[in-house]
Amino acid sequence: MNSVLIRSVAEMQMVSCKIKGTIGFVPTMGFLHEGHLSLVKAAQNRSDNVIVSIYVNPSQFAPDEDLDNYPRDLDKDIELLNELQVDYIFFPNDKEMYPADFKTWVSVDKLTTMLCGKSRPTHFRGVTTIVTKLINIIRPDFMFLGEKDFQQLTVLKQMTKDLNLTTEIIGCPLVREPDGLAMSSRNKYLTIDQRKNAISIYKALLLAQDLFTNGHKTVDKIISKMKTLINQHKGTIDYIDVVDSSTLESIENLYVGCRIVVAVYFGKTRLIDNIEIK
Amino acid sequence: MNSVLIRSVAEMQMVSCKIKGTIGFVPTMGFLHEGHLSLVKAAQNRSDNVIVSIYVNPSQFAPDEDLDNYPRDLDKDIELLNELQVDYIFFPNDKEMYPADFKTWVSVDKLTTMLCGKSRPTHFRGVTTIVTKLINIIRPDFMFLGEKDFQQLTVLKQMTKDLNLTTEIIGCPLVREPDGLAMSSRNKYLTIDQRKNAISIYKALLLAQDLFTNGHKTVDKIISKMKTLINQHKGTIDYIDVVDSSTLESIENLYVGCRIVVAVYFGKTRLIDNIEIK
Repeated sequence: MNSVLIRSVAEMQMVSCKIKGTIGFVPTMGFLHEGHLSLVKAAQNRSDNVIVSIYVNPSQFAPDEDLDNYPRDLDKDIELLNELQVDYIFFPNDKEMYPADFKTWVSVDKLTTMLCGKSRPTHFRGVTTIVTKLINIIRPDFMFLGEKDFQQLTVLKQMTKDLNLTTEIIGCPLVREPDGLAMSSRNKYLTIDQRKNAISIYKALLLAQDLFTNGHKTVDKIISKMKTLINQHKGTIDYIDVVDSSTLESIENLYVGCRIVVAVYFGKTRLIDNIEIK
Repeated sequence: MNSVLIRSVAEMQMVSCKIKGTIGFVPTMGFLHEGHLSLVKAAQNRSDNVIVSIYVNPSQFAPDEDLDNYPRDLDKDIELLNELQVDYIFFPNDKEMYPADFKTWVSVDKLTTMLCGKSRPTHFRGVTTIVTKLINIIRPDFMFLGEKDFQQLTVLKQMTKDLNLTTEIIGCPLVREPDGLAMSSRNKYLTIDQRKNAISIYKALLLAQDLFTNGHKTVDKIISKMKTLINQHKGTIDYIDVVDSSTLESIENLYVGCRIVVAVYFGKTRLIDNIEIK
C-alpha cells in the first residue's frame, strides 16, 4: 500500500491525533539517501506508525547559503518511501509553516554557538524552531535523527528536555558510502575531483582512532595530523574538534566515548562528519 | 472533594495524558485574587477538567525586579481553589522547571519589544518559555488568560499559532476592585496613599473613553490629558499608548475596538491596565 501523502498542517494534526499505537517520526529535507532510509527502518522497528516529513526549512539557511540550490526530488523521495511502506509522508509548504506574520523562535544557548554554530550563527535556531513545530503537529512518541549531524542531535535532545516535550529522541548511526564518505544530500554538489578528495575526511577520522589506539591522546597533536591529511586533499577546514559527547565542550586528551567532529569545505561545499572514539 | 495537588512534572504529565474529556488550564503565579478566580470559573464553564498552575516563574523577572518579594501564599491559594473545586493544582519547583543545564528559550519578535518590553526586555522571553513548558506538560485544550496583561495575551496567541500548538487561548475580561483599580497581586505593595492615587489609572482610561465618545479622536491630545490626570496623582508614567488590538502597533486616531494600554509606577510598584475603546 502506498504512503498517505499529507500537505496541510491541519490535516496532519487531525490524522496524527487519531492514530492508534505509537508514532515514529523521521524529519528530513528530502533528496533521500541510504542515511535517511536507515532512519526510516529504525523508526519502523520501534514504532507502530511511521511519519516522514519532507521539508527544506528556509529558516535554517543563512541568506548566503544554498537554500535555492538545495537538491530536491519529491517524486523520487515518495517512490523510495512507498517502497519502504512508510505510513504517512508530510510535506508542508513555506506559506503554511512560516506565514507572513510569523514571529516565534526556539533557541538553545551555548550548544549552538560552538562548532557549526560559529560559521552558521542562525542555523540551529532555524532547526530547533522547525522541529518544535513538527513535533507539535505530529506528536510523535519517538523521533529518529542521524548521528551525522551530531551537534544537531545534541541540541535537539537538550531542547526537548528543556521544553518538556515527551518525544524521545533516538540517535541512529551515520551511514557511509562504500569508500567511507558520510552520506549527505550535499555530496551531489561535489565535482569528480572533490568527491575523491572528500574521502580524506573519513581517512583523517580513522587516523585519529588509530593514533588513539596506539597510545596517543593529546588532542592538539592528533588534530594537527588530521589537518595535514585533509589539506593535502585540498580540503579547507572549517573546524576539527575533539569534544565531550554530551556537552560538546572541547577536551584536551582523548578518551573512549569522546567524539571527533569535523567540518570541511571542498570548493563551496561544506561537509560534516564525526566519529566516536572507541 | 479537594483539588489533587501535583508537584512533580512527570506526575503531572502522566495524569494529564490519562484525563478523559477536555482540559482547561489557568496558569498563575499564585497569590490568587478575584481576577484569577474569574479565569478558573471561565475554565470550568468551558472544560471537563480544570488544572491551575501556581508557579512564580523566575525567568520572567529581571535581576533588579521583585522576584524575591513577589507575594506568595500557597496555603491560601489551595484553599481558594479547593472551594471552587478545581480538579488539579500543579505547583512545580524551580529545580525541576529550570535544572542547572537549562538552555532553551522561546521568544517572540516585535510584539515583545514594544510597551512593557521596553522597560522589561527579557520579561516576555521568560513568559513564552514557561508557558511552552506548561503547555507541553499539561496539554490543555484551552488556556485561560486575563486581558489585564493584554500584551502577554497577544504574545501568547502569536506563540501558540506560530509553534502549531493546538491549545486554544481564551482571553477573559479584566477584573477590577470596587473603586476601579485593576486587580493585581502587586497591589499589595502599595501604601495607603499610593493605593488611593492608583485609581487615577482607571480614571484616565475612562476619561479617554469619554473624550472619544464626545468626538475626540486624536491620540496625542487624549494621551496628554491622561498623563496630566495620572501625574496629578503622583503616578510616574512608564508608557501610555493607543494600539491596534491585534498588532499592538501605535495608531494616530482612536477607533472602536482599539486599545489604550498603560503602565504607571506608584513608588516602586509598577501597575498595568488597559481598556478597549467602545
